[in-house]
Amino acid sequence: MGKYTIGIDYGTQSGRAVIIDVSNGNEVASHVTPYRDHVIDEKLPHKDIKLEQDWALQNPDDYVDVLVSSVPKAMEIAGINKDDVIGIGVDFTSCTMMPVNKDGKVLCQLDEYRDNPHAWTKLWKHHAAQDEADKLNAIARERGETFLARYGNKISSEWLIPKIWQIVDEAPEIYDAAYSFMEATDWITMQMTGNMVRNSCTAGYKAIWHKQEGFPEPEFFKSLHPKLENLVEEKFIGDILPIGSKAGELQQKLAEQMGLNAGISVCVGNVDAHVAAPAVDVTQPGKMLMIMGTSACDILLGSEEKLVNGMCGVVEDGAIPGYFAYEAGQSAVGDIFEWFTTYCIPEKYQVEAREQGKNIHVYLEEKARELRPGESGIIALDWWNGNRSVLVDTNLTGVFLGMTLLTKPEELYRALIEATAFGKRKIIDTFEQSGVPVNELYACGGLPEKNKMLMQIFADITNKPIRISASAQTPALGAAMFASVAAGAEVGGYDNIVDAAKNMAKLKEEVFKPIPENVEIYEKLYQEYELLHDYFGRGANDVMKRLKKIKSEVK
Amino acid sequence: MGKYTIGIDYGTQSGRAVIIDVSNGNEVASHVTPYRDHVIDEKLPHKDIKLEQDWALQNPDDYVDVLVSSVPKAMEIAGINKDDVIGIGVDFTSCTMMPVNKDGKVLCQLDEYRDNPHAWTKLWKHHAAQDEADKLNAIARERGETFLARYGNKISSEWLIPKIWQIVDEAPEIYDAAYSFMEATDWITMQMTGNMVRNSCTAGYKAIWHKQEGFPEPEFFKSLHPKLENLVEEKFIGDILPIGSKAGELQQKLAEQMGLNAGISVCVGNVDAHVAAPAVDVTQPGKMLMIMGTSACDILLGSEEKLVNGMCGVVEDGAIPGYFAYEAGQSAVGDIFEWFTTYCIPEKYQVEAREQGKNIHVYLEEKARELRPGESGIIALDWWNGNRSVLVDTNLTGVFLGMTLLTKPEELYRALIEATAFGKRKIIDTFEQSGVPVNELYACGGLPEKNKMLMQIFADITNKPIRISASAQTPALGAAMFASVAAGAEVGGYDNIVDAAKNMAKLKEEVFKPIPENVEIYEKLYQEYELLHDYFGRGANDVMKRLKKIKSEVK
Repeated sequence: MGKYTIGIDYGTQSGRAVIIDVSNGNEVASHVTPYRDHVIDEKLPHKDIKLEQDWALQNPDDYVDVLVSSVPKAMEIAGINKDDVIGIGVDFTSCTMMPVNKDGKVLCQLDEYRDNPHAWTKLWKHHAAQDEADKLNAIARERGETFLARYGNKISSEWLIPKIWQIVDEAPEIYDAAYSFMEATDWITMQMTGNMVRNSCTAGYKAIWHKQEGFPEPEFFKSLHPKLENLVEEKFIGDILPIGSKAGELQQKLAEQMGLNAGISVCVGNVDAHVAAPAVDVTQPGKMLMIMGTSACDILLGSEEKLVNGMCGVVEDGAIPGYFAYEAGQSAVGDIFEWFTTYCIPEKYQVEAREQGKNIHVYLEEKARELRPGESGIIALDWWNGNRSVLVDTNLTGVFLGMTLLTKPEELYRALIEATAFGKRKIIDTFEQSGVPVNELYACGGLPEKNKMLMQIFADITNKPIRISASAQTPALGAAMFASVAAGAEVGGYDNIVDAAKNMAKLKEEVFKPIPENVEIYEKLYQEYELLHDYFGRGANDVMKRLKKIKSEVK
Repeated sequence: MGKYTIGIDYGTQSGRAVIIDVSNGNEVASHVTPYRDHVIDEKLPHKDIKLEQDWALQNPDDYVDVLVSSVPKAMEIAGINKDDVIGIGVDFTSCTMMPVNKDGKVLCQLDEYRDNPHAWTKLWKHHAAQDEADKLNAIARERGETFLARYGNKISSEWLIPKIWQIVDEAPEIYDAAYSFMEATDWITMQMTGNMVRNSCTAGYKAIWHKQEGFPEPEFFKSLHPKLENLVEEKFIGDILPIGSKAGELQQKLAEQMGLNAGISVCVGNVDAHVAAPAVDVTQPGKMLMIMGTSACDILLGSEEKLVNGMCGVVEDGAIPGYFAYEAGQSAVGDIFEWFTTYCIPEKYQVEAREQGKNIHVYLEEKARELRPGESGIIALDWWNGNRSVLVDTNLTGVFLGMTLLTKPEELYRALIEATAFGKRKIIDTFEQSGVPVNELYACGGLPEKNKMLMQIFADITNKPIRISASAQTPALGAAMFASVAAGAEVGGYDNIVDAAKNMAKLKEEVFKPIPENVEIYEKLYQEYELLHDYFGRGANDVMKRLKKIKSEVK
């Protein structure tokens, strides 16, 4: 008679409910519900109200849909008794945020506000608050705000305060009408429990909250905009709870729609990246999780708070309660390979790949695998989408160097993979030089699963062994694990996330170990990467920015 | 009753005879004969004797074949009276050289030597004398030989002295047996006239000869190898005559085989690049001819001898008698575009080009033409095959900089074209900064003919108007023009090449004029190119060389 928890992973296009066996972490069933309104980036769904460039909204009704559609269907597939489901946890994209009224309704759910785009959920990739972010950073620097250093000296336009400030600037009536601003992960959790609480992860990474110091002072917010002076006091309603805490209990109405028992434990919200750490047993300091997909996010646990250049944030209880979680990132990884296969692969290769019944990435990997490190003579800078860590500069661009008339596509492809690994090495080196040790690497996401050569190159270039998630749904597994902690040992869950990880974490047996002769050559190549990285990235030659400026002037 | 001369253009794969109307330069007929033995780079044609890497030989019989096959056939096509043919001139690849006996036979034409690869014609692109070239340059530098400065401080492995030295090193018996070493252009001319004479162009550019100072001293040659001490005196037989001089008269036996009258004038040999200058009316100082094909060669006329950094050579009477001809070069132009279309064009583009019935270059040009200067944000260094001028460094490699996830193939393609134009601009700037004015540009070769966008970009980036050859066979036209001068005005030719050019040069009406708004943007982009050019090319960051070194160590 097993016990189960449900992890619900809210992505950009859909939400997925996964039922997990608490005793061993096995996935019992899963179901996906795509969002009906997808990403809203051209016009509002109900009326022809156009959105400006860089906007990205979502409809909160779609989030609720996932609960009432996917959960019952996953339960049906699993064929388990609902009495054996002891808890629920969610993870979400972030910072995905919305203005809510006192009843917890998103303002766009009310007729009164529906026509105002600012009343809707702003998706993480809503990029229209860049002006506000730039001003915020300038003001914070000028005022000498110490919080900046915790965020690599830059608050992103994707985060909560710039997004709220954009509302103040462009729709003050929405700001006034908002009883609170919430992260979507907290909002969907509140739908289940009726409790307006917040989680320590998004509060820390996205809302400039610090466990010891709290939020920035009203004086700072006032310097942004007079209306914002009492933002924290007036509009951030609800306690901030460490992740893995119980947010409340599943309420009757939704329990019925979800096919579950009312009263089971609901865990506080979490974020799709950070939630994955325990799912690959990243529960101790020195362990780093690399989430590798279109872009990459790194979560590293430390026992002290250090200021590390160019990281995205450091938050106490940010991933595993009791530790500091450092976040760093690479703004493009899989996206670069995708660009390459879309635009730079000759017809001959495509035809051959088809004839051999292979995906073009598999075909290229086979060719690139034949190459030894250094054999191509090519080096690349992995900045096709700027550099998130450690340079924190969106205006940097990609470089290929070393081509001859004999250079083959597989050599460029391998150079791109190596470049992303060099970028990772730079992040790791920066952590270590700042006093945050990185001992072991763990990987999850779409890329590690598919591309063994890539993982070997990462192991060789970082000179660290890498283990890979064995779960196809690592974030959902993580959410289910935290749910088992929120439910507690007395009902069949766990007392803490370390115990949960011991039993539920899923790692493949295979370890990618550095190959000494490759390590030696890559050490030399990394020195070249570093030289170019610093030359183009740290101001010696700002050609990339000047080219971008000329580009924008010409357009 | 017109008069005609015949220009014979010896390329790498074939020779072409072209009959030209002396009064107006019109092409009356032409015929091509491919070389039966092509480029001999694996084994000798008559026996299974293998060649080492980097070798490239030819069979001199193939050169004679062109005379006796293509000339009569061209005459037949032209339907003209042989009494109206007043002269012949040839141009050739260079330095293509051979050891000959006293009778003017190439040693490989004698049974005794046929099995020795060193007895054969060494083609210009025979690259197996690199060791000798490197040693020659080191010794010349050490001795403070002033001739080095006339050749951009580097004697190429493709040139005469390294090729001869390789024979001394590897086949001293061939060196001993050689009565003389000849350029192929002089040798084929000698076949027609029976006179062993040499031309000022190849003597100057390829054999370290100077009109005032002669060859280097025996002491220098001795320092290379004791056997070479009296090379000039013993093995360079025959006077050096200015180009456009009469080498002699067509002899009876060959005249019969060629279907011409014996006794007509034969001009001294010339080189495929330099011979083209008068054919586009490049006959005065300040005019520069750009020969643009797989690689590019520039011929600039000046009235004084100046030392210009990184040029390939300066020779008095080197292209137009009476002037100094400066040669510079770009080691890859069309070859880079060819690399790009071979390896970096997606299937979608190839399919679309086919559906539209377009060559892929035409298709890409149409897409790239839509882009404004600076719009792509991409800059490239055109060093896919090293840099000939002005850096004279074969170990430099290509760079693309500025890519984003939205970068399209046509943007990279246009950046490559721009890079070759920036390379040209650098050459022009270097000439002008050294006191050799460049006022007007003229272009011939495969690329200018085919790619209007390329020519406009060259005009915009150099900020100089460009005119294009109207002849499809510019070198052969040039050879025929020099033939008309060697024949002289009294038989219907001309007194000098300037007069010949006035009547016979062929330029298209169309002038590519710089477009001021493009010039302005390209000026900014050129500054970026120059910064990268100097950073990677002049020692600040020798990453390209280190990558090549790692590459060769790994292999």
